[in-house]
Amino acid sequence: MKKIIAVNAGSSSLKIQLVAMPAEEVICKGQVERIGLTDSIFTLKYGDGQKVEKVLDIEDHHAAIDLLLQALLEYKIIADYAEIKGIGHRVVHGGDFFDQSVVIDDEVLHKIEALIDLAPLHNPSAAMGIRAMHKLLPDVPSVAVFDTAFYQTLPEVNYRYSLPYDFYDKYKARKYGAHGTSHNYVSHRAAAVIDKPYADLKIITLHLGAGCSITATKDGQAFDTSMGFTPLAGLTMATRAGDIDVSLVSYLEKQMGKTTDEMIEILNKESGLLGISGISSDSREIEDAMATNPRAQLAMDIFVDRIVGFVGSYVAKMGGVDALVFTAGVGENSAILRQMIIDRLAFMNIHLDAQANSQRGKELVLSTPDSAVKVLLIPTNEELMIVRDVYRLTTKNG
Amino acid sequence: MKKIIAVNAGSSSLKIQLVAMPAEEVICKGQVERIGLTDSIFTLKYGDGQKVEKVLDIEDHHAAIDLLLQALLEYKIIADYAEIKGIGHRVVHGGDFFDQSVVIDDEVLHKIEALIDLAPLHNPSAAMGIRAMHKLLPDVPSVAVFDTAFYQTLPEVNYRYSLPYDFYDKYKARKYGAHGTSHNYVSHRAAAVIDKPYADLKIITLHLGAGCSITATKDGQAFDTSMGFTPLAGLTMATRAGDIDVSLVSYLEKQMGKTTDEMIEILNKESGLLGISGISSDSREIEDAMATNPRAQLAMDIFVDRIVGFVGSYVAKMGGVDALVFTAGVGENSAILRQMIIDRLAFMNIHLDAQANSQRGKELVLSTPDSAVKVLLIPTNEELMIVRDVYRLTTKNG
Repeated sequence: MKKIIAVNAGSSSLKIQLVAMPAEEVICKGQVERIGLTDSIFTLKYGDGQKVEKVLDIEDHHAAIDLLLQALLEYKIIADYAEIKGIGHRVVHGGDFFDQSVVIDDEVLHKIEALIDLAPLHNPSAAMGIRAMHKLLPDVPSVAVFDTAFYQTLPEVNYRYSLPYDFYDKYKARKYGAHGTSHNYVSHRAAAVIDKPYADLKIITLHLGAGCSITATKDGQAFDTSMGFTPLAGLTMATRAGDIDVSLVSYLEKQMGKTTDEMIEILNKESGLLGISGISSDSREIEDAMATNPRAQLAMDIFVDRIVGFVGSYVAKMGGVDALVFTAGVGENSAILRQMIIDRLAFMNIHLDAQANSQRGKELVLSTPDSAVKVLLIPTNEELMIVRDVYRLTTKNG
Repeated sequence: MKKIIAVNAGSSSLKIQLVAMPAEEVICKGQVERIGLTDSIFTLKYGDGQKVEKVLDIEDHHAAIDLLLQALLEYKIIADYAEIKGIGHRVVHGGDFFDQSVVIDDEVLHKIEALIDLAPLHNPSAAMGIRAMHKLLPDVPSVAVFDTAFYQTLPEVNYRYSLPYDFYDKYKARKYGAHGTSHNYVSHRAAAVIDKPYADLKIITLHLGAGCSITATKDGQAFDTSMGFTPLAGLTMATRAGDIDVSLVSYLEKQMGKTTDEMIEILNKESGLLGISGISSDSREIEDAMATNPRAQLAMDIFVDRIVGFVGSYVAKMGGVDALVFTAGVGENSAILRQMIIDRLAFMNIHLDAQANSQRGKELVLSTPDSAVKVLLIPTNEELMIVRDVYRLTTKNG
């Protein structure tokens, strides 16, 4: 039995899971939210339903990891760090370098850092997580699991942009996608829940969190996805603009006297739900304000509209759909959002069971028995995918 | 009876039509293609099927208009320029200034030129056309008909980008659309052909020419469209890239040592079918090469894929569709392209009648009687829309 820790470092959150492998038994889950903001929230769940929650100020990812590892000792989840036999890090962008998970060495870490241009909100946190963990546990082998790896199977028609052909060879210009570990996991779970072979199903998975992406899976592999060369593209997100006319960005640069980099920063951090509503990047706060704040209502309507558009686009591109799957923080927890989306799809004879839709936290069929398409809630589990790869790679390599 | 001339100045073509109003009788059609290239093609059709065609080098839009007007006298279509009572100019981008057609004065012309940033491929030619025509016929009232005017009815959810809210007020950042005069005309004609009230229909119009756009029309007005702040956005086009991750453009600028303006130029002029195939921006040449040239096949497959994606997106956003309408040079003439698109939509029970689809040049129902959605070919007639507005505005004003 090996204890393996999965680390998922987002831009303002850091989650760990300690898992006993190969049994896939979760020993504990810890997370820090609101890193770098005031009132960071530290949570640890372990043992037989025990839970610790603290509100304190946590400055950066290094402090978050330090706190989480110390908590493992403090709450006697492990007796010694030596019990941890492997570490897996979620890395958003593997660019053209990585089409599968790899054991991390200096070269791998440098490549992850070299890809920061492609995922400016994410690869820096992943790299910080890797360096922080390595400092605390220098002798434990660690593995990088890339969100982009799942999209190496996209057909050329879907990964290529309509650019001069040689831009792919010369500059690696292609659609890389993101959240692949999550879409991979929930699409496989969806096939299991509806008890049909994965390769026979057309599945659309909606990963809706602070970052949002939609992936179409067909013939047993990823077929298309809404994120692009970077995780800026596609849907309206918490603070990201999603798809936008490039000429508009160039025009705004001139009007506002900004550089391209400054504009990209605005598109990543000041746009999306936050930019439209002016009140929050958190969809729960948007939902609460909708009834009284027209800009909150507008933000939610745009959010839903872009999701409905991508779903329709992938239904047409795949020539049908068997299952729609909601996952990630917003997708798993917002019954209102799910209802707004599926209401728009009623013309396809897709319908939600209101009772099922009021639940959360477990795998559920949300659609009515007569719905033409299954609608599922599948809590994502990127950590499980990560520890499986760590176990496989560290066991194989010795 | 008034003779009115419609002028449609594209980036490398210029078309005129002389129409007797209010009878809407076309007296002659003239066009110059390949302006600024070698072997420009001059064509004039008039009278009872008479046709003139010449191949010569025509340097610019001024020379093209000069040639076309002189031909009206030379072939005795008119006896004197004084017979021309009104001129209508198609203008791609009216920005935030124009939500309807207007009589052109110095201020209007200056505004059209001020909008060149928004339509760098188009407004310069429109402005050149207006200036050239004004020099030759200084006393004839002229009217600008804007392609963007049709999209002033878009719902806010669809015209707004997911940007900071005040960018619309401060910088006029919104979706303006393009080809509105064409989509307006063919969607109305489609309702007439299938003999149902326009306001009761959900229509998707596919304007596929050198520029390509798709518009969804619902409740009697434009609902959404694929072009954006400028005509760069949306579909893969002859030389334009369509939608692309903004971060990729910023990344390419750095990799290639280009300015943003230089990158936008590449996205407008060296991308799309030309960029992917490497052989041509002309879809006829791409079709001819498909069987033997994998990059031509890829270009066509990407072209079709993006169209299918937008159709699916608009079907979902509108909650269904009653009619799909093909128009413009490629849409009206490429039976292969129409077949490739509709084949992908067979899962919606949409089917083409192969015999009908082999025809061209007139309004046709292309779908089989049992097709769930009507598929129509409607030759576009932007000129008719233009002369109607010229007649209305010049008759009312004087």
